[in-house]
Amino acid sequence: MGIEDFLSSGNTRLDQQLKFTAEIDKMTGIYRRTMLISGIRNENDAEHSWHIAVMALLFKEYCVEEPNVERAIKMLVVHDLIEIYAGDTFAYDVEGNASKAAREAAAADKLYAQLPAEQGAELRALWEEFDAMETVDAKYASCLDRIQPLLHNTLTEGHTWRDGGAVRSQVEDRAHIVKEFMPEVYAWIMKNLDRGVEKGWLKE
Amino acid sequence: MGIEDFLSSGNTRLDQQLKFTAEIDKMTGIYRRTMLISGIRNENDAEHSWHIAVMALLFKEYCVEEPNVERAIKMLVVHDLIEIYAGDTFAYDVEGNASKAAREAAAADKLYAQLPAEQGAELRALWEEFDAMETVDAKYASCLDRIQPLLHNTLTEGHTWRDGGAVRSQVEDRAHIVKEFMPEVYAWIMKNLDRGVEKGWLKE
Repeated sequence: MGIEDFLSSGNTRLDQQLKFTAEIDKMTGIYRRTMLISGIRNENDAEHSWHIAVMALLFKEYCVEEPNVERAIKMLVVHDLIEIYAGDTFAYDVEGNASKAAREAAAADKLYAQLPAEQGAELRALWEEFDAMETVDAKYASCLDRIQPLLHNTLTEGHTWRDGGAVRSQVEDRAHIVKEFMPEVYAWIMKNLDRGVEKGWLKE
Repeated sequence: MGIEDFLSSGNTRLDQQLKFTAEIDKMTGIYRRTMLISGIRNENDAEHSWHIAVMALLFKEYCVEEPNVERAIKMLVVHDLIEIYAGDTFAYDVEGNASKAAREAAAADKLYAQLPAEQGAELRALWEEFDAMETVDAKYASCLDRIQPLLHNTLTEGHTWRDGGAVRSQVEDRAHIVKEFMPEVYAWIMKNLDRGVEKGWLKE
């Protein structure tokens, strides 16, 4: 009797769903460049996805158009699943970002083929919607995905900026969706970039 | 200029929400008795909450009454927040479970007072609904909260059972909501308990 037997229920469809559930536990081993606020280690994708899902319950009021919080949360909990096979691409890695779309599409093919077809299609569609950043819900989700690491970063003495030698204009570029969609939160981010430059964590 | 300055936006309400967001990062330091499937360390509450939120997208079809998946996901991402102050209570710890309700209510008072009142009330209500296990959405969420550690446990050679000296009837008691609400999944759990006993991980 091997480990696989524990994923065998006698129903092939349920087995697929259980195996997929076991497979995505690998998100806990995909490390991001952001540190946990405690500073003890880098954050992983499971922790990040959970954190921004809770944030979605709190920050809706700052959006210029009202998002559907529930749909945004669904996107947020699945938006990084493809990194199980594609890995995390650092925001300021130029080469990595050039190949990112192709790597992530291949990862999505591999990942979602493991689910019953209509469930794979549903989860993939949520990720594609998130990634396209065109719908109101996707804009909200994308803003949170950018705000959270900026929060962590300023609370860990600019760890990611210092680590990556980041320049202020790069950080501003990456936060452009927040500027457009959550301007009051963007104003706070700009204050923190001023402070980050003053501290020497971020290059002007 | 201290760390606190980075949480200062000029808007008291936004500051509260940012501070709360930073505070709940402590979920990454609340360890459960369950191991990650990789077996490298115990799982934390952030990872667990994320994992069962994704599961909510997959297992609805096994419920005897149809849940609202979006509401279940909202409950799942916040259901363990009170453990930031109350700690994780091991499922098979009799003393810990006797004091659990009082400890968790005090933790909720402390935690949710940090948010704007109506947001604190919303998140607390989601947790209370989850905890009461009476609504269809809460039953679905509770089932997932029980299924996921059982999955992890069988894939890590019965780690939690062996660690806690668990007896089969205790595991069955804890899974009673799955028996009632997701009977086909319960049948798979029962098969795994048979296998767990056969392997010597669980006492008959």
